[in-house]
Amino acid sequence: MTQSRSVPARYLTGLVGRDIQASLTPRLHESEADAQGVRLVYRLFDFAADGRTEADLPGLLDALQLVGFAGINVTHPYKQAVIAHLDELSPQAAQIGSVNTVIFREGRRIGYNTDVTGFAENLRSGLPHGTAIDRVVQMGAGGAGAATAHALMDLGVAQLTLFDSDPARANTLADALCAAHGADRAIVGQDLAASITHADGIVNATPMGMAVHPGSAVPRALLEPRLWVTDIVYFPLETQFLREARAAGCTALDGSGMTIYQAVGAFHHFTGLTADPARMRTNFHAALAG
Amino acid sequence: MTQSRSVPARYLTGLVGRDIQASLTPRLHESEADAQGVRLVYRLFDFAADGRTEADLPGLLDALQLVGFAGINVTHPYKQAVIAHLDELSPQAAQIGSVNTVIFREGRRIGYNTDVTGFAENLRSGLPHGTAIDRVVQMGAGGAGAATAHALMDLGVAQLTLFDSDPARANTLADALCAAHGADRAIVGQDLAASITHADGIVNATPMGMAVHPGSAVPRALLEPRLWVTDIVYFPLETQFLREARAAGCTALDGSGMTIYQAVGAFHHFTGLTADPARMRTNFHAALAG
Repeated sequence: MTQSRSVPARYLTGLVGRDIQASLTPRLHESEADAQGVRLVYRLFDFAADGRTEADLPGLLDALQLVGFAGINVTHPYKQAVIAHLDELSPQAAQIGSVNTVIFREGRRIGYNTDVTGFAENLRSGLPHGTAIDRVVQMGAGGAGAATAHALMDLGVAQLTLFDSDPARANTLADALCAAHGADRAIVGQDLAASITHADGIVNATPMGMAVHPGSAVPRALLEPRLWVTDIVYFPLETQFLREARAAGCTALDGSGMTIYQAVGAFHHFTGLTADPARMRTNFHAALAG
Repeated sequence: MTQSRSVPARYLTGLVGRDIQASLTPRLHESEADAQGVRLVYRLFDFAADGRTEADLPGLLDALQLVGFAGINVTHPYKQAVIAHLDELSPQAAQIGSVNTVIFREGRRIGYNTDVTGFAENLRSGLPHGTAIDRVVQMGAGGAGAATAHALMDLGVAQLTLFDSDPARANTLADALCAAHGADRAIVGQDLAASITHADGIVNATPMGMAVHPGSAVPRALLEPRLWVTDIVYFPLETQFLREARAAGCTALDGSGMTIYQAVGAFHHFTGLTADPARMRTNFHAALAG
């Protein structure tokens, strides 16, 4: 849509996925827009609630583009399926084969992955300056694990050791990481204790620690003060893993950071504006509490 | 779109027409929504600026409905053309054959005409209680004149006398009014002075009084203190007609009222909420000034 320069900015955005009624992302984007004095609506397109299937995805994208949406976030289970309907991918989205943000720009659809860039940005800004990230152990090699692993490569991790309850899945991700970022930068671990002994940090990319998946993927006895740790789980914010790591003296970044920075990235793609991560964090924590 | 009750209300609305970049309607709706703490975006779909034609109208309606727009306003030149793409019309829209508001509700498209209801509501609330409206003279029988004339019928005017520089157009409208509201309730006038002598009020529904159409459709000498007058022109608010009528001692309602009350009506259709006409008037005058 062409729009006169004199017309104040209005942004239509949203989230496409299934079973997303509880998503906090609308509040993250709308409260940030409010704080910046920008008019923005973030609408849920919940294919489960609306009785839609993947076959309805291209029609919805056509309609969103036609009526002037700035873009949309995409979540489970459409992060891969959406790619067939895009014109262009960012390097991160192309490497991981997964898109969480689609921007409509001058008649084209461009796919980004701000889960990858957001996880990287959270570690970059959250870990103390000079923290070593040469060797990292990651628990979990699913969809979220692919995002965190690619982000760790982008951050310059020299060797990432993957553990997953499904070894084949860990192998597939390690192969993809090596293909995209360089041979031998990612391997599948055999002995968690030995790997952690040589690691600078540990990433939990499994669902363990959520209320429905209690426990921790990392035995408490392996946690040492020199390690930094982070978790993708953010409900609860204080997982058993993070609690035990803090108790052991580790530097610990909770799971809100990845969510906040993926929204910071998407907000920038949608509006061209720079979101304030500290304000988004405050609003995110308020939304979690409320 | 089904939406969970716990999700705060968000309204996507807009205006479809040609050459509408200067429209003040977005500000009317958005400022009222802001005042009520409701999140609303009102977007212009300017077919001239966007290079679209009437053939693109059904596709746009499909897309707006699919992505969850609450509804849209429709203006020149699509108020008649849109009807072919609707499922249902309000009585006012059906009588006048013109739609300025389309609501998407439970998969159906319903057409309303809040120009008609807005003009009526403005007279009802703006004229002093007990003001006679039995006989009215109307200058102009074009599209806007059709809206004001049907509204006058709805208000209970017993005899409306139409004047237009094109007598055939006046005849067509008079016939339509009689067919819809009762024989002999509308006639085409022959002698303006004689008609005004017997009239309670005068409506200007011609463009005369706009900067590009200077002058007044009603000779100053015919204005008497017992008459009420109103104008559809609102730029400027103080037309020559209104200025001369006030000077002659007439009760005069300016053209902002029809615009404000059509927006009050559309806002209610879009959101289910009742707009505050006084606040909309304040915001409209501020927008006109700014």
